[in-house]
This record gives sequence, structure tokens and C-alpha cells, in this order.
Amino acid sequence: MSILFLADLAAEELGIWTQALRASLPDDDILAWTGDAACAPAAKVQAGVTVAIVANPPPGRLARLPGLRLVQSAWAGVDALLADPALPAVPLARLVDPQLAADMAEAVLGHVLALHRQMPAYRAQQARGVWQPLAQPRMAERRVGVLGMGEMGQASAALLAQVGFDVVGWSRRPREPLPGVAMASGADGLDHVLGTAQILVNLLPLTPQTQGLLGAGAFARMPRGAGLVNAGRGGHVVVPDLIAALDAGQIGHAVLDVFTVEPLPASDPLWRRDDVTITPHVAAPTDPRSAARAIAANISRWRAGEALVGLVDRGTGY
Amino acid sequence: MSILFLADLAAEELGIWTQALRASLPDDDILAWTGDAACAPAAKVQAGVTVAIVANPPPGRLARLPGLRLVQSAWAGVDALLADPALPAVPLARLVDPQLAADMAEAVLGHVLALHRQMPAYRAQQARGVWQPLAQPRMAERRVGVLGMGEMGQASAALLAQVGFDVVGWSRRPREPLPGVAMASGADGLDHVLGTAQILVNLLPLTPQTQGLLGAGAFARMPRGAGLVNAGRGGHVVVPDLIAALDAGQIGHAVLDVFTVEPLPASDPLWRRDDVTITPHVAAPTDPRSAARAIAANISRWRAGEALVGLVDRGTGY
Repeated sequence: MSILFLADLAAEELGIWTQALRASLPDDDILAWTGDAACAPAAKVQAGVTVAIVANPPPGRLARLPGLRLVQSAWAGVDALLADPALPAVPLARLVDPQLAADMAEAVLGHVLALHRQMPAYRAQQARGVWQPLAQPRMAERRVGVLGMGEMGQASAALLAQVGFDVVGWSRRPREPLPGVAMASGADGLDHVLGTAQILVNLLPLTPQTQGLLGAGAFARMPRGAGLVNAGRGGHVVVPDLIAALDAGQIGHAVLDVFTVEPLPASDPLWRRDDVTITPHVAAPTDPRSAARAIAANISRWRAGEALVGLVDRGTGY
Repeated sequence: MSILFLADLAAEELGIWTQALRASLPDDDILAWTGDAACAPAAKVQAGVTVAIVANPPPGRLARLPGLRLVQSAWAGVDALLADPALPAVPLARLVDPQLAADMAEAVLGHVLALHRQMPAYRAQQARGVWQPLAQPRMAERRVGVLGMGEMGQASAALLAQVGFDVVGWSRRPREPLPGVAMASGADGLDHVLGTAQILVNLLPLTPQTQGLLGAGAFARMPRGAGLVNAGRGGHVVVPDLIAALDAGQIGHAVLDVFTVEPLPASDPLWRRDDVTITPHVAAPTDPRSAARAIAANISRWRAGEALVGLVDRGTGY
């Protein structure tokens, strides 16, 4: 089968990915293309493509593949893909990779523990040479809310609960329970989570419904001084509202791994805030090795007529 | 029974402790004394004391209790007590409180994850407005060494292993295995741990044998750029050697919760280093409520002629 890996990646990364995909799909013909018009595959080659595996494909490119029957994203988030008005109406699957979920859980645990143990406050004291123990609740006394109960949200909530935090997970629609995790859903559930979580972790998909969810309204409902960890998408957070909430002490500290413009411009005032921790979209980078295995398994399922894992519902956007 | 709580604590803390001890030992006569000579109990009262529960007792005070038959420390570490040349030759028990071990494990996990996730490096990048993802090993690829397999070391090593780190625990003498934790002991074991641990956690008791253990020799044997978490005692670390190892990049970052002089003087240059995280001896503060219960249970054991938990061997110093 002719599979096109359409990825706007630097040469080295493109090579790593292509090698991993070829190793996981040894019987297929894998063609790599950055989408650069100057080195477009011949029209005949493009016409033969049945499956496209995509990573940041330039808008419009997929529409030129007349034989396309499946689009498989190499990323877990498909918000950028869905923003392409020329996206063909074939099945679209997002990446579901257990390794990615485990990596996210690890990053979330690290940031939640840093907030829980008041590391930013101790750092501020250190800068002033101040020796002052702070009252410290235990993990069991700390409510952590996790927004989004997809693969990454579930893995993160489960790990937080496993080490001892009081965890409540929120999803739009009711979900199966997870061991040790209280579950909430819908608008009432969101009010409950926002109203009680001293540390809030966002792992929602970015959709028209979740865009700007973390704005003034949400911040005002949170306990005073709450911590925020955004590892979802930059578009979930209304940055001017966050800055106002930080200035007012309503949000105590924010950990931001994702931004609407990445890299975050060096001139952005967020960089210089002591009450903001910035990481360069590294919470859970896609690992080409495990991702290629997950993608190959999904393509095999599709060829066998089985259900795709991560099939995107274009109505909900994830 | 007449029990003296001899504690150089501020009035409020002394009151909280005394109340907790009275609640846990309702049938005993609990007398609280800061050791201040101006308000010493009458000689007759002192003569009637059978058990002393001690927290930072001024040196020499215990020697004036002729009827003393047991000293129970309110702290887990007894190095300061053993330094009193007038310490009576009666059984001495250190505090063994499962809550304290759980609290320490939580603190250790937080600091190890912060080092594992390269938070100091990202903070340094943030200060310069630099967006640069760093190669990130997974927890399973990160060797964490834990020095000291007492109650706190065991709880910390077990939690680190539970979340997925590659953990090796070291003790002077061989210990029973812990699930998921490789065990090492003796001088060869120490060489192995120092030589392989990318993050080293010190939870040893302070004894003449462990004083200054973390000095130039140990640092030179560690992998280049290793992280250090010291939640044992300040006396374990040779601070000038640590500064030299940090300056040379041999140690990448040190988290120090304990110091030979506490509070750490405001003039100490450690405060101003970006490659040192200072916390004011807060990794696992003794909780008077759970400690009083553990102490009361130990005194009950002793009264019943059973073995004391945490009986200190004056030869080894713990």
C-alpha cells in the first residue's frame, strides 16, 4: 500500500520518523514529504496514496490526494488539522499511544508535586534569603482536578491518585470510573471541580467548546491561590485573564507548557513572571518509535475492517 | 507515671505537643519544661521523673533526673542528643512514626521529579526567554540512589519505585529487599550507588561514620551532572566540596533541606546559587499528633517489657 508521511518537520526529525514508520510498516511503501511545493511527489505518485500519516501538514495538501481513504495523525491533538477547511471527508484518527499517556502522567505528577510542595514560594523566599517553614498539607488533603478524561487525562489522574492525591477527573460526557479518582461530568461537574480543586490540570482537547475555557469566569470560581497546570493547548487559556488572576492572587501559580504561538516569543511578558513556570511544549513529546508502532497497529486494524482507535468525531472535535 | 516533656520549643509549639502527649498518655502525669533554669521543676518533682520525652533538650539537663529509666526522642534523628556527654546510660529510643516516613517520601518524590524533569534548567532558560526543549529520559531510564534504608529511606525508595524510577537503596548493613528496589550495602555497594545514580537522595542518620560522607570523594565518583537531594542532616555534606562540584558541573543541582547551622544564615552564599534549591528543614517535620501516638505506643511497649521500637544502638549512633 502507498502511504504518504506528510510532515512539516526538520530534516533530521523527518528522517527519524520515516525510519520508524518503515520499521513498523515493512510491507508498505512509505513516502515522506514535508509539503514543500518545490519537491512535491509526481502527480501519479500522489494519486496512488491511500493513507496519509500527518504531522503539521500544510493546509490544502491532503485535498490533492484523490485516492486518499484514511488520515492518521502523528499527534494526539487534531485541532490544527480540523482547522484546514480542505481536509478531505475520509476517516481521521488521532494518535493514541499508551507511552504518550504515561509520559504526560509523569510530567503532570512532577508539576503538581512542585505546586503541592510550594516550590515557587520557597524559591521566592530563597531569593530573599528568608528561612520560613510554610504550613504543608499532605497529598491526601490536596484536591487535584484533572480536566479531560481522554487517554492522557486518565493516565495522569490515575498516577496522581496512586501516590495519594485527592483527585477528581472531569469530562464533558460521563465516563467509566477510574480507581481512586472521583469522576465528574457536564456543566455541574465542571462547577464542582473548579470550585474545589486547589490544583487544576488541563488536558482537554482543543475544540470550539473548550477554546478559552480557562478564563476569568473559571478562575473566579476556583479556590483563592489555586495552582494551574496547562498541558492541553494554549487556546484553552485566556492569557490576559490569567495575568489578571495572577496579579490579584486568585491564581497562585501557573505552569504553562503550551501556547497559542509556539515558540512563545522572547518578548512575551509571561517569561518574566515569577508566578508562571514556562516549559517549551515538552510535557509529552510524541516519541516516533512508540508512535510508529501505534500507528502501524491502527492501520492494520483499518485494513482488517476493524474499528480505528482514536477515530475523530468531527462534531465534537476529538 | 511521671513523664517529663523536655523540649526547647516556642510556647505555642510546646503547648501543642503537651496537649497531644496528654491526649495519647491520659493516665500519666505529663510535665512540660523548656529546660530554662529559671523555671525548673522542684528537685522533688525532677527526682520522680521516670521517662523523659525530649525535643532539643539543653545539654546536661537529663543528667539531673536520678530516677530516669527511659529517654524517648520526639525527633527521628538523635545525633544532637548523642552529642551530650552527660546523656544518661538508660535506653534511648528515636521517633519511629509511619506518618513521618510517608511525609518524607512525598517530599523526596517531589524533589526527585523536579530534578528528573530538569525544572532548574527550564527555569534558567525561562529567565533568558529561551524556548529550547531538552532531551528527556523517562523515569524508568533514570537511576535514583537512596542512601539510608531506615523507615524514611525505605518509604522514599518504595514510592520512587512505585511511580517508575529505577531505584537502588543503600544501607551500611544488608537489608531485606523492598519491592521494585535494588538493594546495595557496604563499601562496594556504596561505590556502585555513587557510580550509577543520576539523582542521589541522602536519608542517612548522622553518625561519626556518615559525617562528611558527601564530600569531594563521593562527588567525583558520581555521574557527571548528577542531582543531589539532602534531607538527612547538614553534617553529611561537606559544603565547600559541594560548591566546588557545582562550580565544576560535576553536580548539576543540589536540593538542600538541612544545614549544619539552622536557620541557614541570611549571609550564606548558598542562598544565591541558581544550582541550589534551599528549603528550611521542611521535608518531613514531626507532626505532634501522630508522633504523640507513636511515642505513647512505644512507652506502653516498654512498660509491658516488650522491645522498644527505634531503640538506639550507641555503637552505630542510630
